[in-house]
Amino acid sequence: MNLDDLLVRLGEWLKGEGPNSEIVMSSRIRLARNLDRIPFTHWADKKEKENVLEALKNALKENEFLQGGIFLLMKEIDELDRVFLLERHLVSHEFIQKPDSKAVVISTNEVVSGMINEEDHLRLQVMQSGFNLRGALDISQRIDQFLSERLNFAFSSEWGYLTACPTNVGTGLRASVMLHLPVLVFTKQINKVIQAITRLGLTARGFYGEGTEATGNFFQISNQVTLGQREEDIVDNLERIIRQVVEYEQNARQMVMSQERERITDRIRRAYGILKNAYIISSNETIELLSQVRLGVDLGIIKDIDRRQLNELFIFIQPAHLQKLEGKKLTAQQRDVKRAQLIRSKLGVV
Amino acid sequence: MNLDDLLVRLGEWLKGEGPNSEIVMSSRIRLARNLDRIPFTHWADKKEKENVLEALKNALKENEFLQGGIFLLMKEIDELDRVFLLERHLVSHEFIQKPDSKAVVISTNEVVSGMINEEDHLRLQVMQSGFNLRGALDISQRIDQFLSERLNFAFSSEWGYLTACPTNVGTGLRASVMLHLPVLVFTKQINKVIQAITRLGLTARGFYGEGTEATGNFFQISNQVTLGQREEDIVDNLERIIRQVVEYEQNARQMVMSQERERITDRIRRAYGILKNAYIISSNETIELLSQVRLGVDLGIIKDIDRRQLNELFIFIQPAHLQKLEGKKLTAQQRDVKRAQLIRSKLGVV
Repeated sequence: MNLDDLLVRLGEWLKGEGPNSEIVMSSRIRLARNLDRIPFTHWADKKEKENVLEALKNALKENEFLQGGIFLLMKEIDELDRVFLLERHLVSHEFIQKPDSKAVVISTNEVVSGMINEEDHLRLQVMQSGFNLRGALDISQRIDQFLSERLNFAFSSEWGYLTACPTNVGTGLRASVMLHLPVLVFTKQINKVIQAITRLGLTARGFYGEGTEATGNFFQISNQVTLGQREEDIVDNLERIIRQVVEYEQNARQMVMSQERERITDRIRRAYGILKNAYIISSNETIELLSQVRLGVDLGIIKDIDRRQLNELFIFIQPAHLQKLEGKKLTAQQRDVKRAQLIRSKLGVV
Repeated sequence: MNLDDLLVRLGEWLKGEGPNSEIVMSSRIRLARNLDRIPFTHWADKKEKENVLEALKNALKENEFLQGGIFLLMKEIDELDRVFLLERHLVSHEFIQKPDSKAVVISTNEVVSGMINEEDHLRLQVMQSGFNLRGALDISQRIDQFLSERLNFAFSSEWGYLTACPTNVGTGLRASVMLHLPVLVFTKQINKVIQAITRLGLTARGFYGEGTEATGNFFQISNQVTLGQREEDIVDNLERIIRQVVEYEQNARQMVMSQERERITDRIRRAYGILKNAYIISSNETIELLSQVRLGVDLGIIKDIDRRQLNELFIFIQPAHLQKLEGKKLTAQQRDVKRAQLIRSKLGVV
């Protein structure tokens, strides 16, 4: 399997199914781990980083979840492919800046992936479709166990797992869910909800992670605290709060459908009409419109497409995806035309 | 035939055919006539106006063009019906203000209509589809001839036909065409064109006549001067200038199709997509979008509807039309919903 195989299909966590998938797009567990007696990435020299890379590669490739997957040295792929991985939610912004001594591993279904020599030696990510943090936690724990039997991780009996940034010390675990909250935004309740979430020790980010805006009414909610709690407790806590947010959005949707059905239908259908007809369209406009259409599917207003197809569009309309599909570099203007073309074709417009 | 018959069909001048009908929506001749020895409407007393009404009614109903048509006393219809006639371009804003002693005659195909006791005793209107001022002039002259054999019109050998407002003295003739100039607007050449037209002694108005804006890129162009020229010369002059404006718009369309095809296609298709999908829509937005779609039909970008269907929408989405179709009064909000419904159904969206 190689990188271009990702062009013809979609990660399993984007299938649009699973618990509460009308609101929870995906669940994610991320573990930060470092090898014992080797400096964290930013302090390690080239030789040390190469050793980390080698050790982790050898251990990871034996793991059942990564059989047949992709192992890529970042310096061996070009910038377009690096951005492609970023758009795919497989690597971080920081990770693609300096490719030296960095590698990524990706399981065939994109459920498991790992960045080697990001700020920690290993950042392991497990994704699941819908509201399924338990499923993701279970897989991450099994891989963690597997690796622990083969490698010595930096661990303090007092602090737990040691990490480059103090905010990750302890479990090294970050649990997060990607929520689609269009009606809390529409009814202007979203700020109150985000404030409450923050007071409860969680963080809300945009669609593309840290530092990005909540384009398309997507909010990534994750735990802040990694220290002094068991992994299960972190996940329990996040789950409990998310369950409430999901309920708020559900109630808001019911309210809107009974009291403002025409106004919300108008918004949704117009968005769908524009997507099916545009000949020039930016990523941002696309994401905003897809968000409305996704809500339309959830509310039963739009029946001729499903969430899986929409998720595919969310991913494939991004610049690097478009350019890889075209097989060449495109200017921003050319991309806006190709994007519109792709959307029309995926939405069945001839 | 009665007023409600107009609800199930469209005036023949809106069939969207005829010379240059891709740019010239319709051609119109209007004659102003007053009966001799009776004061103009604003100075006449009730008895005199009733006499005018009776005399004109008796003469008009015998005319071949008005056989089987409608004769309506304005005071006998309610306000909704009066606005309905206005939306239909059969009466003027001024005419529907005070209904006393006023009447309207309408031919079955809506080609010929007359207002009795507007500011002149008779305002006769002849409409034709496309660029066909000659056709309209011919009919108006035949009716004028017919009436002259039965009635004495106020006429001075020095001035010609006498009218209430000096701007109509002479021929009493106003010739006008309704032009659709979306690409001259799109390419920002329209102001120069309007300025040139004005310098040549013509007047440009909006879609709904005097004092209205050029909604939907429609411009009604007519002659200013009625005095000192033969009817044929007035029409010749207007025709010559309009032919040039039509050519400008044609050239601009060619230019845009070769140099900005994607941008114009995007605008047109989006407009069509919104019209087919909206659930709430105002008249103004509808007219702007229909204008884009009309251009799309003209440029061959939209193939599944024709100009006749679009003309029908331009007329039927207006407030009084919507309310008569519904058979009851509707608030502005209710109209916006009904309008969207009507558009979807006329555009074949189930």
